[in-house]
Amino acid sequence: MKVAVFQGLRQLEVIDAPEPVMSRPDDVLLQIDRVGVCGSDIHYYLNGRIGDQVLQYPATLGHECSGTVLAVGPDVRNVAPGDRVAIDPAITCGTCDQCRLGRFHTCRHVRFMGSPGQAPGAAAERVVVPARCCFAVPANVTLDQAALVEPLSVGLHAVRVAQLGNNAKIAILGAGPIGLSVLLCAKAQGNYSITVADLREERLKFAQLCGANGTVIVKHEGREVHEDKYEFVFECTGDPTCIDQGQRLLKCGGTLVIVGIPGVDQAIFDPHFMRRHELTFKSVRRQNQCVEPLIEMLAQGKINADPLITHRYSLENIAQAFETVAGYREGVVKAMIEVSEVYA
Amino acid sequence: MKVAVFQGLRQLEVIDAPEPVMSRPDDVLLQIDRVGVCGSDIHYYLNGRIGDQVLQYPATLGHECSGTVLAVGPDVRNVAPGDRVAIDPAITCGTCDQCRLGRFHTCRHVRFMGSPGQAPGAAAERVVVPARCCFAVPANVTLDQAALVEPLSVGLHAVRVAQLGNNAKIAILGAGPIGLSVLLCAKAQGNYSITVADLREERLKFAQLCGANGTVIVKHEGREVHEDKYEFVFECTGDPTCIDQGQRLLKCGGTLVIVGIPGVDQAIFDPHFMRRHELTFKSVRRQNQCVEPLIEMLAQGKINADPLITHRYSLENIAQAFETVAGYREGVVKAMIEVSEVYA
Amino acid sequence: MKVAVFQGLRQLEVIDAPEPVMSRPDDVLLQIDRVGVCGSDIHYYLNGRIGDQVLQYPATLGHECSGTVLAVGPDVRNVAPGDRVAIDPAITCGTCDQCRLGRFHTCRHVRFMGSPGQAPGAAAERVVVPARCCFAVPANVTLDQAALVEPLSVGLHAVRVAQLGNNAKIAILGAGPIGLSVLLCAKAQGNYSITVADLREERLKFAQLCGANGTVIVKHEGREVHEDKYEFVFECTGDPTCIDQGQRLLKCGGTLVIVGIPGVDQAIFDPHFMRRHELTFKSVRRQNQCVEPLIEMLAQGKINADPLITHRYSLENIAQAFETVAGYREGVVKAMIEVSEVYA
Amino acid sequence: MKVAVFQGLRQLEVIDAPEPVMSRPDDVLLQIDRVGVCGSDIHYYLNGRIGDQVLQYPATLGHECSGTVLAVGPDVRNVAPGDRVAIDPAITCGTCDQCRLGRFHTCRHVRFMGSPGQAPGAAAERVVVPARCCFAVPANVTLDQAALVEPLSVGLHAVRVAQLGNNAKIAILGAGPIGLSVLLCAKAQGNYSITVADLREERLKFAQLCGANGTVIVKHEGREVHEDKYEFVFECTGDPTCIDQGQRLLKCGGTLVIVGIPGVDQAIFDPHFMRRHELTFKSVRRQNQCVEPLIEMLAQGKINADPLITHRYSLENIAQAFETVAGYREGVVKAMIEVSEVYA
Repeated sequence: MKVAVFQGLRQLEVIDAPEPVMSRPDDVLLQIDRVGVCGSDIHYYLNGRIGDQVLQYPATLGHECSGTVLAVGPDVRNVAPGDRVAIDPAITCGTCDQCRLGRFHTCRHVRFMGSPGQAPGAAAERVVVPARCCFAVPANVTLDQAALVEPLSVGLHAVRVAQLGNNAKIAILGAGPIGLSVLLCAKAQGNYSITVADLREERLKFAQLCGANGTVIVKHEGREVHEDKYEFVFECTGDPTCIDQGQRLLKCGGTLVIVGIPGVDQAIFDPHFMRRHELTFKSVRRQNQCVEPLIEMLAQGKINADPLITHRYSLENIAQAFETVAGYREGVVKAMIEVSEVYA
Repeated sequence: MKVAVFQGLRQLEVIDAPEPVMSRPDDVLLQIDRVGVCGSDIHYYLNGRIGDQVLQYPATLGHECSGTVLAVGPDVRNVAPGDRVAIDPAITCGTCDQCRLGRFHTCRHVRFMGSPGQAPGAAAERVVVPARCCFAVPANVTLDQAALVEPLSVGLHAVRVAQLGNNAKIAILGAGPIGLSVLLCAKAQGNYSITVADLREERLKFAQLCGANGTVIVKHEGREVHEDKYEFVFECTGDPTCIDQGQRLLKCGGTLVIVGIPGVDQAIFDPHFMRRHELTFKSVRRQNQCVEPLIEMLAQGKINADPLITHRYSLENIAQAFETVAGYREGVVKAMIEVSEVYA
Repeated sequence: MKVAVFQGLRQLEVIDAPEPVMSRPDDVLLQIDRVGVCGSDIHYYLNGRIGDQVLQYPATLGHECSGTVLAVGPDVRNVAPGDRVAIDPAITCGTCDQCRLGRFHTCRHVRFMGSPGQAPGAAAERVVVPARCCFAVPANVTLDQAALVEPLSVGLHAVRVAQLGNNAKIAILGAGPIGLSVLLCAKAQGNYSITVADLREERLKFAQLCGANGTVIVKHEGREVHEDKYEFVFECTGDPTCIDQGQRLLKCGGTLVIVGIPGVDQAIFDPHFMRRHELTFKSVRRQNQCVEPLIEMLAQGKINADPLITHRYSLENIAQAFETVAGYREGVVKAMIEVSEVYA
Repeated sequence: MKVAVFQGLRQLEVIDAPEPVMSRPDDVLLQIDRVGVCGSDIHYYLNGRIGDQVLQYPATLGHECSGTVLAVGPDVRNVAPGDRVAIDPAITCGTCDQCRLGRFHTCRHVRFMGSPGQAPGAAAERVVVPARCCFAVPANVTLDQAALVEPLSVGLHAVRVAQLGNNAKIAILGAGPIGLSVLLCAKAQGNYSITVADLREERLKFAQLCGANGTVIVKHEGREVHEDKYEFVFECTGDPTCIDQGQRLLKCGGTLVIVGIPGVDQAIFDPHFMRRHELTFKSVRRQNQCVEPLIEMLAQGKINADPLITHRYSLENIAQAFETVAGYREGVVKAMIEVSEVYA
């Protein structure tokens, strides 16, 4: 079968590889239909590593995927051949202290699809995963939407971690895929007033499309983004100075949720400001138990994420997709790889 | 009547002053029996200011107090003449947005006893306060204990803000009056395993006396305080480097509660560490609605705070009390001013 | 001034009465603009009592009201003469154990406007209330809407007590004023799927107008209302058999919120069904701290309660209003008394 | 190997049976060391059924067990041969809606050890269970204690469902094994004041041994058990009249947790009392995710459950154990079957 592999820095090829094999009674053999290109994939493409996670070439990749069930092991009861599924790419152990606590996203032995040395990537024609990673989607959820479940789930997890109060006023700093996921999930959940801030006007147009109640263009000179005050601020830019800026937008008792991944090792904030206003900072790690609720929200039409997919490529052209996203060309938000030719 | 007043930097005198006057139907006239010396009092004593709150001389002071009701206005129903009371020194407006939310501690118009330009201090023979600031204590709570309710309430508030999970492992950094208050309140509430860290061995003895399950002497050289991991860490030293050090003691999903007041305007932490372990930072501002529960805990014998009172002075000798605390002399923890000669 | 008073069973008259007098520094003198007719008013009208609360004639009445500030005492800072206000009719003591806990709605010494022997009713040209019962409304909230804040707040309180999970499926049993208030408040808060059940088709039309996602006409013969399962069921009919019926509509772990006031002293349910599905029953008592959020929701246009007002009367014709509501004539939902001639 | 089986009503025999076989990569082969006799076992013994769950003879039994790992499948990483383990007898599917929500105790396809038609019982020399049902215990937790984990976990789950407030006053109705489990778990968790009520003085002695702050003997004549008021009441008698009686012991805003299993299909309560005091009723179903915390609490010495084991039998004498418990003879609380001869 065809598989995409990194062969070196900025070298992405499609090669022939052996078929995956089912070996456990709860295994599921999947045809991959769609794989989205994630920012973390681009980090590996350009740098060969994220922090201390380093690629060994050749390396498979991809984790934002949907597929169709081809075969199931004898213990599988949640999906059956022919089912169209969204995939949770985190294969957890189920028995470590974190799993026992229900904190599957910090599993001590997690094998994440496409992460170096963990589990095979989804940019392939077929994969085998445990049944518990498979979630059947109903007929009115498309394969594209099913592949968007993973990035959207990061937004939903951030929204859940925030524990938004009713009727809250919210600011989102950054209108990239993560900021927009937070926006879509928050709007799908509650009747919040949400303002989105970004440096680029074109991104704010997506924010409006995704239901932002207001948008603010940030100019570099001024420190204060805007004057209004919020109960919750989501930091989705990855700019570490936005942590201190973000807290200054909060009302007393407010919460800053740090979703963006900073590119530096130090973040600075004013502890007096934090204390006098009794603020909370929360951080998020991937997602936990958000796949099923997201499928339901998509099926009910509470989220319209289709506009996020701005570019489409076949598996053969995956290198072109990576170049487009890496170069932030053509106003790309999300590039989708159509691995199969099924379009339902 | 006698009143203590700041007359200048490090100048504290007891002078004659006019009697306070009851003017509202919910006013209460109190005889002050005890006033504790707080770290914030010492800040004013030495520097004449805390941040942008600046003394105008002469200035009254004191807010950790207990007293006896002398007279009540016609609308007062919660206390009666002769009642011994603990005092909440925050006179709140009751109608601003924060009070409406039940966040009385961030009231927009708060008048805090002994704060510059707000309300008269408690280092006086008599004061008038609204009935809602008065909490009658039962016969088995002493006037000393009633005066300790205010500093203890800061500890209880921090414990409540933390939302401690059952059976949690906890570390407290700093064994001064605030760290010890956190310790006493956490132990009174749940069956937690609590380790206390400090630079001074003598302070750790107080921690043991207050129920610490373990203590750790911190040596300056090493970065890592100890190897064990906690669900909750309370930062009670005011040393801003303890914020990043504190987060490194946490398990995945853990919470750092920042209680100590840093002496600088910038705190630094590693945002990658925070994110990978999905940590939360919380801060606390004074206390909220903790006075009544604390009185109950004292009355039930769940807290024994008496060992914290290491020194005693009459109102005439209040300057000596301040010198002792300011100089951290004689192993002082809490100095108590015996304003009246009632000792029940 | 003119005041409406009960003179006996089903005897309601408008008489001349002395002006109310401001006597405390936090008092507010109000012109009453609107008073709504509540189900509890009708109970007093027809029966002279609710449970052990018995009228002494003549008796004033009314508590769902809005007004305009005429004068304020020297301590009042939250409202000023000329302000248009919504009124919280519960005058609480602020110092009992329940108030200290923030449970103002179960205050031990509450004086509720228009309740026998408690505080004067609002069906009068002017009243005096404490400043903390007054909430200024912005220009885009009408006097009608301000008078609806009180009945709506019962719905919001029920929604808050329920602690609705994100994306929850909800059923509301009963589409009277309370069921509709629950519906409006839940829809204003979150993106819930809400089904409303009632015996009367005309009431279900109001439910559709208020945003119900589905409606179900209940036929008397069948026990099972419908087959679908919900995370939350709000019992708003007052029919005690709906408690057991309501629990059977719940998913495992679901919550039944009992809002309707039953006319009997015994309710029956199957404890095995409750246990096997691990269900929770919650009850609600009036409202707590919901007035300010409701004003904000009305001002933001998140709630459109105007259709609930189906009938209007002058203060002189208040007896006619009571007859209409008591007889459930002309499809009445909410009858509004226009005490003043201000219509802004 | 030896296995105990029901052969008919009140007929319990030990027979020879085939060895269990490991068939899945996450299977664990266990030597059973201890099995406790549960009230539900007695129901099956005497009646052959619990509700609609009916025995087919011969039928294995037993689910309160501890054991020693003999062998593990290739995917098992949480336990190893030689480990002493506590067992969670609920084998859950992991992929139904309830498991996805973390509500494993209401799994749609649960196979509970010793339940008719579900999974083999633990009253046998050896069993095979999935690794996720096995929890290694440290050296200072005995095999007896490990077997008590399951009944204790029901108490801990009830305590967790209750969401006990800090410093709460608690009443427990019924001092049988379940009431005592609730007592032990609540005392191990927080500094609560707990009063236990029962009809039998000898049971109240166990309550005192388990840390009750007070005990009350209930006399049949009087309706009111005692006058004091509680924030939480745990109904652990199974007497349906205790639901209404229990709610009358609550303070405003309090919670009644229904743990006991009533023998009838109807429970009656006064809905006015519930509403005026804004009470909550919660029910509990077995336990969820409480095994690991309980092992930790036992290891730390926070729970001393040893006094609950009043009787001991070998596997051969299991019929005698059932007769003793069924007859409530000799003041039995918990009868423990020593299946193996390991006593560490």
